[in-house]
Amino acid sequence: MSVEEIFTRTSVRSFTDKVPTEKDMEYLMKAAMAAPSAMNQQCWEFCIVDDPQTIEKLSKAAPYASPVGRAPRAIVVLGNEDMMRAEIMWLEDLGAATQNILLAAKSKGIGTVWIGIAPHPERMKAVADIIGLPGNVRPFCLIAVGYPDYETRPNEGRYKPERVHRNRY
Amino acid sequence: MSVEEIFTRTSVRSFTDKVPTEKDMEYLMKAAMAAPSAMNQQCWEFCIVDDPQTIEKLSKAAPYASPVGRAPRAIVVLGNEDMMRAEIMWLEDLGAATQNILLAAKSKGIGTVWIGIAPHPERMKAVADIIGLPGNVRPFCLIAVGYPDYETRPNEGRYKPERVHRNRY
Repeated sequence: MSVEEIFTRTSVRSFTDKVPTEKDMEYLMKAAMAAPSAMNQQCWEFCIVDDPQTIEKLSKAAPYASPVGRAPRAIVVLGNEDMMRAEIMWLEDLGAATQNILLAAKSKGIGTVWIGIAPHPERMKAVADIIGLPGNVRPFCLIAVGYPDYETRPNEGRYKPERVHRNRY
Repeated sequence: MSVEEIFTRTSVRSFTDKVPTEKDMEYLMKAAMAAPSAMNQQCWEFCIVDDPQTIEKLSKAAPYASPVGRAPRAIVVLGNEDMMRAEIMWLEDLGAATQNILLAAKSKGIGTVWIGIAPHPERMKAVADIIGLPGNVRPFCLIAVGYPDYETRPNEGRYKPERVHRNRY
């Protein structure tokens, strides 16, 4: 066995008009919530965006966010402060949950790209304003979600054995 | 297709004496380095630990690190400042790389548990001292790696549909 999606996943920045099914979107949410987290805090929430005007606004909320504007769906990954039992670790927890979404999408033939938002204050404020977040909910990242309009190829040459040390650095 | 490992992975805290092969450890490293990262910075390095004394020390380097002391291998996930082009996002990048390791391990029948180190300064210092990190290399987390000495069961009830919002929070 192996997790092929880890190696075949690539960032997708251009999409067809085909819309992921609600069932597939639910699968992505289930995958996200299966991630591990510090002290099992599971401090995540999500906002699925299909409204074209909101998608357009999100595509301008951060540098490199333009692929969101070309996708039929966007996911805003959120951290809820009221659920944080290990607040200092929320970024890494949501990083793991986001990676689960990307891999689960790939397994369904769905392309994604992760657009970083936190911990940049200005990007966080822009996203919070667009989707109406209360003060206790932090936007973590945007994910553009759709079907690639080109053939994706696995990244090559990412493995660098010299980055692996043994017992001491 | 689906990524079953996302849903069957659980934190494993007790291990048999069976040692993961070098080939399997290399597979975990390849999986880690296939993760996405902010500005494609790929600022990760890794230290695989098999020396029993070093494993023993690491198992006392942080709260909840004791499972490391019961595992035949440990991985220290590292961030190298000289490779950081988006330093502010290193925690989320390494969170994604770590999640890849956990999933790749699960696909080989290998159990893991993620022990949080960064951004706690005192935990980071303890790990840095044990494996001799230079000042530009930050420890991110520890991963205990081995074969579970009990039958693992998928976590149930993690999916909470009320955590998913639509278009606005």
